[in-house]
Amino acid sequence: MICKTPEPPYYAVIFTSTLNEVDEHYSEMSELTEAAAEKMEGYIGNEHFRNEDGFGIHISYWKDMDSIKRWKHDELHKKAKQKGISEFYKNYTVRISKVEMDSSL
Amino acid sequence: MICKTPEPPYYAVIFTSTLNEVDEHYSEMSELTEAAAEKMEGYIGNEHFRNEDGFGIHISYWKDMDSIKRWKHDELHKKAKQKGISEFYKNYTVRISKVEMDSSL
Repeated sequence: MICKTPEPPYYAVIFTSTLNEVDEHYSEMSELTEAAAEKMEGYIGNEHFRNEDGFGIHISYWKDMDSIKRWKHDELHKKAKQKGISEFYKNYTVRISKVEMDSSL
Repeated sequence: MICKTPEPPYYAVIFTSTLNEVDEHYSEMSELTEAAAEKMEGYIGNEHFRNEDGFGIHISYWKDMDSIKRWKHDELHKKAKQKGISEFYKNYTVRISKVEMDSSL
């Protein structure tokens, strides 16, 4: 479940959110969006969870900022984001960060 | 549960880990370490979870790289890290990243 990532630098998109309620409609949209992200050039992988109260952290790793910008402007992603804002998310914060160093055990 | 952070840039330390087993000894050490981090200059806040299988994500936010370095060399933190490696962690990855932009709903 720990994502295998290349030597830094690479990028991490940290998406923290709270859902209005956890239901199958959100799960379905989330899986479709995830499957689309995995096909994008520059996508490395992700680490995520969501608890029963609707709080979740989703970190996706990307090769570079250009890959993140392409994903930002992807049509399926934009529709999912709009639907998420209007129906699913109580609140969220998305942070785009550059991983400068890492180490593993 | 979503951490309030200042205008970028700031830093995120993404710590993903798997425990050998989830027990009260780890929880106790984790709480003491967290309390010590909160007193460090430059500490902003954190977002975290751990599931029943022992997989966890812990993201701490820091003002700058100097704050992270001071925390890295803190004696209590170094002891907790050694104990974690010898007793608690099956594996982990720690990533130090610079948050370049963010947005919230």
